Order: sequence, then C-alpha cells, then structure tokens
Amino acid sequence: MKEFDLIARLTRNLPTHEGVIAGPGDDCALLDLGVPRQWVVFKTDAIVEGIHFTPETPAERVGHKAMARVLSDFAAAAATPTAALITLALPPGHNPDRIEALYHGLCETARRWNVAIVGGETTTNPERVLVSIAALGTVDKSRSVRRSGAQPGDALFVSGELGGSIAGHHLEFQPRLDEAHWLTEQFSIHAMIDLSDGLAGDVRHLTVASGVGAELHEGSLPIRRAAKLRARSGESPKSAILAALTDGEDFELLFAVGKKDAVAVLDGWKARFPDVRLTCIGRITSEPGIRLRDRQGPKPMPTHGYVHFT
Amino acid sequence: MKEFDLIARLTRNLPTHEGVIAGPGDDCALLDLGVPRQWVVFKTDAIVEGIHFTPETPAERVGHKAMARVLSDFAAAAATPTAALITLALPPGHNPDRIEALYHGLCETARRWNVAIVGGETTTNPERVLVSIAALGTVDKSRSVRRSGAQPGDALFVSGELGGSIAGHHLEFQPRLDEAHWLTEQFSIHAMIDLSDGLAGDVRHLTVASGVGAELHEGSLPIRRAAKLRARSGESPKSAILAALTDGEDFELLFAVGKKDAVAVLDGWKARFPDVRLTCIGRITSEPGIRLRDRQGPKPMPTHGYVHFT
Repeated sequence: MKEFDLIARLTRNLPTHEGVIAGPGDDCALLDLGVPRQWVVFKTDAIVEGIHFTPETPAERVGHKAMARVLSDFAAAAATPTAALITLALPPGHNPDRIEALYHGLCETARRWNVAIVGGETTTNPERVLVSIAALGTVDKSRSVRRSGAQPGDALFVSGELGGSIAGHHLEFQPRLDEAHWLTEQFSIHAMIDLSDGLAGDVRHLTVASGVGAELHEGSLPIRRAAKLRARSGESPKSAILAALTDGEDFELLFAVGKKDAVAVLDGWKARFPDVRLTCIGRITSEPGIRLRDRQGPKPMPTHGYVHFT
Repeated sequence: MKEFDLIARLTRNLPTHEGVIAGPGDDCALLDLGVPRQWVVFKTDAIVEGIHFTPETPAERVGHKAMARVLSDFAAAAATPTAALITLALPPGHNPDRIEALYHGLCETARRWNVAIVGGETTTNPERVLVSIAALGTVDKSRSVRRSGAQPGDALFVSGELGGSIAGHHLEFQPRLDEAHWLTEQFSIHAMIDLSDGLAGDVRHLTVASGVGAELHEGSLPIRRAAKLRARSGESPKSAILAALTDGEDFELLFAVGKKDAVAVLDGWKARFPDVRLTCIGRITSEPGIRLRDRQGPKPMPTHGYVHFT
C-alpha cells in the first residue's frame, strides 16, 4: 500500500470544527484562534536516520535539515514561524555529543528565523534516531496562499534549481521565507507549494488541489549542476531531466501567478534576490493532467515523483 | 546519561523571544500570539511500540492513548485543546488495517474533546510504529496555571488513583480536562501538573519549579486496586505504596491550592465529579525536598519515580 493510499484511508472523516481554515492536504494547517487579521499556522515534519540522513551525516546538518524542512512549509504558506517543539526519539546507546551537535544545528537555524524552541521531549526508539519538529506561527489573512487557487493561463515559476539534492543540497538548503513574504506582499500569488517530493509530484499536488492542469517546458527546467554531474558520471541511473522532475528534497517554491504579473515578478525578484534563480517553467491549463513539452511537442508527464528519498 | 541530564544539556541557551510566556520545563508551552485575553498552548507527545504499547495492544487503544496523553498535558495547564497534527512513523510491512484502527481510536478521542485533526504525515521507521501528536489550543490568561506557584502551607490534591497503570489504566484513562476547567474557574489553583512519571517524580517537578518542598501522608495515598493486586500476587516486585509513588502513567492531576480553599475544593469536587476520587495527600512546605510521613513520622522520599514505563 502506497503512502498516499494509506493517507487517503486515514483522512476520511477526520474530526473538524469551524475554527479550521485549512486542514489535511495543504502544506500547513490554518486555524482561526481569534488573532486579529491572522490565521495561526501549524505544521509538523519528521526525519529518520537511514532514510533522511545517515549515521555519518554531520549532526549539525541533520539538525539544520530537520528545522529547515518545516520552515520550508511555512514559506509555502507565506507564513511567519514563531515557535517549535522538538521530539527526539533516541536509541539507548546514543552518543550525547552527537545529539547535542544535532540540537545545536537545529537551534542555529531556528534562531536565524527568530523561531523560539519552547520545549519538546526525548523518548526511546531503540534502533535509530528520529527527529520530529512541530512548529506554529501566523500568516496575515490578506496574504495567505495555499495549493489551491491556480487558474488557467497562470505562469508557473520555480525558485532555485532542481534535482541531485542528495549530493548536498538536502543538508544545506535555506527555507525560502524571505522570498515567499516578498512575493505575497508584492503580488497576488494564486497558489504555492514547496518542492519536497520532486517537481513532477508536487506540480501534480498543486494542480489537483486547484482543479487545473499544467504544461511544463522541458528545456526551461533549472537543473542543478549536481544532477547533471550525477547523470553524466553514471552515479545516478536517471537522466538530468528525470532527476530534476523526481529526485525530491529540493525545498524550493513552486507558484502560480497571473500571466499579466509574470514579467514584473521576474524583474522584481532579480532585483531583490539576485543570488537566487527564478524560472518560469510553464503554465497552468484548464485541461487536467501534466504535460511536458519538448522539441517534439507536449507529452504526458512520465512519472509522479518519489514519495521518499530512499 | 539519564534523560533529564541530556535534556539539561540540550535546553541550555535555546532560542527564545518576547512572545514566549512559558517554554521548556512546563507541561505545555504558552505563547502570546495576540489572541485577546488568551495564551496559545502548544504541546507534543510521542509513544513508541515496545515502550508504551506492544504489537498485541488493541490498536484503537493505542490511538486513544496517544491522543489522551497530550490532552492530559492540556488539562494540567487548564487549557482547551483545539487542533492536532499526527505523525505516524511506520515499518514498511505494517498492517494498514491496524493503522486504520489506531487512527480510529485517536480520532474518536479527539472528537470527544472537539479537537480537529488538521493533518500530519506518515514516514518510515523500519523496526517499529511510533506515533507523535502535536496539539495546540488556548487558555484564558486569568485561569492559566503552571507547575510553579505552589506556596508553603498549600494543600496538595491528587485526582483518581495511583499505581498499577500497566494493568489497563494506561490504555483507558480519560484526560482530566473538565475537572481542570472546573477547578480553575472556581478556585485559585496555585500550581498543577499531570502525573506521567509517577507521583514521586512529578511532585518533585512541581515543588522544584515552585521553589518549595512537600510532605506527603503515606496513609492517604489513593492506591489503585490493580497496584495492590499486583503487589499481593507477586506480579510486581514493588509494594503497593511504592507502585503508587513510582509506576507512572497515572495521567491524574496533582495540584496545590491555598489551605483555606481545601474543604471547598473537596466538597465542590464531590458534588461535581461524584465518580472521580479527589484526595488531599499532603501539603507544601517551605523546606525543600519531599518527605513521606508514615506512623513513624516523616522520612525523605526514597525515590524519584521512573522516567519511562519500560
């Protein structure tokens, strides 16, 4: 049973109430707790030794990754994270120095974004380290953006580069919080998501949530140098294009904006974030499904992206 | 290295800011997010197969336990839980029917307390099931209660019964939310904590946080029948008293209230919650440390309680 099938089974008929603005199926949950002009934003994310990092991964980077992953979801919601709780599940024979270094990496990244660590717990997981982070924050109702809302004709943009994240990016990426805040302050962003499952999978999440389709231009995809090198050297069996579509853990922003704003978004971004690429990779269509256009014309997207980075 | 020592190392110098009202070291974190007259309350709790439940534990009860544990922390803070996120870490060969039953138990308990399940994630933990729940809610500033605040002379009360939880209570207990709301509405509760580590350990947490000590009356402790039976049959090597002090997972309320209110608390509770015991088990002292008084007089508390139920 695939992860998405299990989730579909589990999320039928969940308890809810009128304070829930966005629940399962978006990057973050949004709640109305009575904060004037704001929703409260709520998200958790877990990483597991042997899946998302190895026993050899420098511990400070493991901590950074754990924190940055959840902050990337806040970026996708154009939200401001405020506080986090840390769950550490540890084998009995763990090395306390390594755990302290992990915590140090995690705290440094939290501090960088003014996120308070307000508690947590340690528990036992006999075979491997697991780190789960729960975070909350706020978003102005006026700038709140979700996966749904993309409209036919919208331009689709992606920040940064795609593919080959395992060569290092997945331990070093920075959440695109500043970029997301700037975007939603300056423009009407119709839909946004952070790229964790790979572009092919995440563009599907965004278009399905919006009830639309998309056409991507293969030649426009901003492929990370590591993805090209890994394809060329044979280190990865995937072509560079396939890596960009399916590797996952890019933690970049994918967003849809009205065609009329596309040039202003590109120009403004270049001035404001000269060190971060922004690429128009295609457009939203009324026809559902994802098509990839190359020199021979459009063809159906070959894959859904990977669920996990295994 | 003991859990508390590791936590002490990890929680030195955590990032914080002026929105944090209560951080590490209380049952729940309290945040000022701008909700009029309220703090936002934030808490996580995880349970692990083989530690907090077994592969044979009925799955619905596992789900109930996971949710009720975190709600018990909300009770200790006199808070109202609003929404929760569920993290399921699952071995690849898990039984989807069992996970669905676990989720069902979890949702039923959430529904009972009007807690919305607003999302979560599934990830891989190859050897065993781990369930982590993050919850948020609110508490009126005027009735917010914490571990600190107990004063010399205060009466110490405990709800329900203690010890032998492993015989069944740990899978069936109900969080004392109604009781905590009633208490803090009717009385000035000086300090409160939920009993998860065992009375001996948790009374220490409460007194250390308050800068006071306590004297408990051994003969007053409300010992659960299961603890007596397990002691008598030899199923547990502990005496019934020691079980009541150290077994853990009671998930009852321990609170301190001014001596002048003690009789009114007892009488009011009996009228309002006739099916739930409430027992005055001792008093707060200015002298630090915990003393247990039996027929021979007071003696230092013999144990700190267990950290985990292993």
